[in-house]
Amino acid sequence: MMNFEYYTPTKVVFGKGTVEKAGELVKQFGGSKVLIHYGGGSVKRTGLLDRVKAALDAAGIAHVELGGVVPNPRLSLVYEGIELCRKEGVDLLLPVGGGSVIDSAKAIGYGLANDGDVWDFYDFKRAPTACMPIGAIVTIAAAGSEMSNSSVITNENGWLKRGCNTDYCRPKFAIMDPELTMTLPAYQTACGCADILMHTMERYFNFDVMDLTDALAEGLMRAVIAASRELVADPNNYEARANVMWASSLSHNGLTGCGAGGGDWACHRLEHEVGGMFDVAHGAGLAAIWGSWARYVLPEDPARFAKFAVNVLGVEPQADATATALKGVEAMEDFYRAIGMPTNLRELGVEPTEAQILELAEKCDIATRGKLGAVKHLTREDMANIYRMAK
Amino acid sequence: MMNFEYYTPTKVVFGKGTVEKAGELVKQFGGSKVLIHYGGGSVKRTGLLDRVKAALDAAGIAHVELGGVVPNPRLSLVYEGIELCRKEGVDLLLPVGGGSVIDSAKAIGYGLANDGDVWDFYDFKRAPTACMPIGAIVTIAAAGSEMSNSSVITNENGWLKRGCNTDYCRPKFAIMDPELTMTLPAYQTACGCADILMHTMERYFNFDVMDLTDALAEGLMRAVIAASRELVADPNNYEARANVMWASSLSHNGLTGCGAGGGDWACHRLEHEVGGMFDVAHGAGLAAIWGSWARYVLPEDPARFAKFAVNVLGVEPQADATATALKGVEAMEDFYRAIGMPTNLRELGVEPTEAQILELAEKCDIATRGKLGAVKHLTREDMANIYRMAK
Repeated sequence: MMNFEYYTPTKVVFGKGTVEKAGELVKQFGGSKVLIHYGGGSVKRTGLLDRVKAALDAAGIAHVELGGVVPNPRLSLVYEGIELCRKEGVDLLLPVGGGSVIDSAKAIGYGLANDGDVWDFYDFKRAPTACMPIGAIVTIAAAGSEMSNSSVITNENGWLKRGCNTDYCRPKFAIMDPELTMTLPAYQTACGCADILMHTMERYFNFDVMDLTDALAEGLMRAVIAASRELVADPNNYEARANVMWASSLSHNGLTGCGAGGGDWACHRLEHEVGGMFDVAHGAGLAAIWGSWARYVLPEDPARFAKFAVNVLGVEPQADATATALKGVEAMEDFYRAIGMPTNLRELGVEPTEAQILELAEKCDIATRGKLGAVKHLTREDMANIYRMAK
Repeated sequence: MMNFEYYTPTKVVFGKGTVEKAGELVKQFGGSKVLIHYGGGSVKRTGLLDRVKAALDAAGIAHVELGGVVPNPRLSLVYEGIELCRKEGVDLLLPVGGGSVIDSAKAIGYGLANDGDVWDFYDFKRAPTACMPIGAIVTIAAAGSEMSNSSVITNENGWLKRGCNTDYCRPKFAIMDPELTMTLPAYQTACGCADILMHTMERYFNFDVMDLTDALAEGLMRAVIAASRELVADPNNYEARANVMWASSLSHNGLTGCGAGGGDWACHRLEHEVGGMFDVAHGAGLAAIWGSWARYVLPEDPARFAKFAVNVLGVEPQADATATALKGVEAMEDFYRAIGMPTNLRELGVEPTEAQILELAEKCDIATRGKLGAVKHLTREDMANIYRMAK
């Protein structure tokens, strides 16, 4: 195992009716005027925005609002948010939404707490030294941005999608009411489950892992798989929603990777390029690629994949580790199908030409600077092979 | 499941050679002059104190020191620490040790950050509103005080042992190098493992638990049991030391109880009185009582104990839940014996008379104000019965 740091300062307030604690939490973390930041109309339709405002009013917290965050949140709206907050004297940011909304708030927070152009931090020109305090009200269980150190923003000038990871942007508090996720369409719920699982799988498929971390990761994955299946039959199952929602935070706050180095992240980066070229949902894109990636890299460490098969998916051990491992990949794909996720690009609705595959591989290789993968280091040719297998 | 809050702001820096980061971490959390707080001579003998001072000197952090913390840390030393820190202008507390030393530092921190007598906070007369920042350098894996909200202090005036639990005292950072725990005697190591397991068992034996929390708790307990066994054979096994040490934090920072209400805590409170009347090690006392408690309360929820037996101890399911549950209790006691822990009071070296048993039960009942136990609410008579079974 390797040395590690674990830092999750976010105060989580989890359960039914917790939205009403928003005002008191803002106060507790020193806020007096907040920006309510959100995406489209769903927070208005469901009445959530009104609940949030009422909770703030009751605590005497002033507020302004900025909606319009889209998936792959845009830099232009971040600039708009920074300007609005400066003008209004906002001292705490209150994103109400999923990963995109929280990521957008993080970027606004960087912009407010540092001089100069906030894009510099995403473009690796400079590092931020602070971030304005953030409290998140989570409505989608997937990205785990409510406890993570990461923020991904898209610059429309060149359509560059870049991330900035620092501890400064970890939210001060997160309100997580599983009931808020019940209005999500089944497909989006399943995409979230796939994303959550992948956040832990990226950390799990690695070398030198720690027994305790493995045990936690395996337990988390089993719980998410069981709850995801339950949600197909009963989208209003509170316990299942709660398990998925809490797992979304724990899967990306670092817990399931402690002692295991940085993780593999090949599936994320391979999907990233597919998402850039075609319009696909992130979680579905991950599911469409995972099986091909797994079969391609499995010979590097059959024992690890066999452990995953037995401990996460309940596969009976076969004659050898490779056979057990392959049964595990099949079982995982069966699970994806059971929750309505694709297991290849065609099922994802994407049929890249050979030229497009080469372009995807080239872009992925350049973006990862020739250093992708922990289980197996992937060359540009490997990447193209995995995309071809995933067709 | 129930609503919950989860708040673990402590930055954990884990692994070999992390002591050398002490100075830079103190700086990062705003300290310029620290109190190095410790227990007996072992931190001097092992050279750890010199390493800490060198790390502080290298970062330009001034320091004063106060040793002499004993198990069941005393209020008189807390007063001495408060006075010393006020005089010296200390702005961050740096306990170097186990739970007692960290708890003592927390009490000093309360005293420094609030007016009046610090004992008021332990005597439930007032609640603190702040605590001076603390950074812990952990040398014993057991109590988990490095991430917890709790501090227990003994007032020599009346020998009152009381706790104060608030989020203010959670350390800002914790340096955890498993190598520092390798010098512990085998008995103390095993006591630590028993304490760690009990912190999760107290939360696990409960109602309305959350599947994800159960999966994490069961994984943690399996990992601790396996590592504890390894340490009997090989006390210098770094991986086993690391698993036990990281589990000590996760077992008492709230993670293994999320959604499960407050926990049972009967074993802790029953042991607390034994520890008050006889001089026993906390972890050993817990092990001595657990089996009797488990057999006594098991009829209330055989299914829960059966789940524990199968998922934590690998027991084969028997004809019914009660039979499986009882096999689990036996397996747990076998484990305690394997690591040199007692499974009854006699093996602990304590043989209470009937009058002493009644006194233990009376004290426990008064201290818990007639409200002990989640699996089964324990009356004073129940407590006496469990003590008798544990003889």
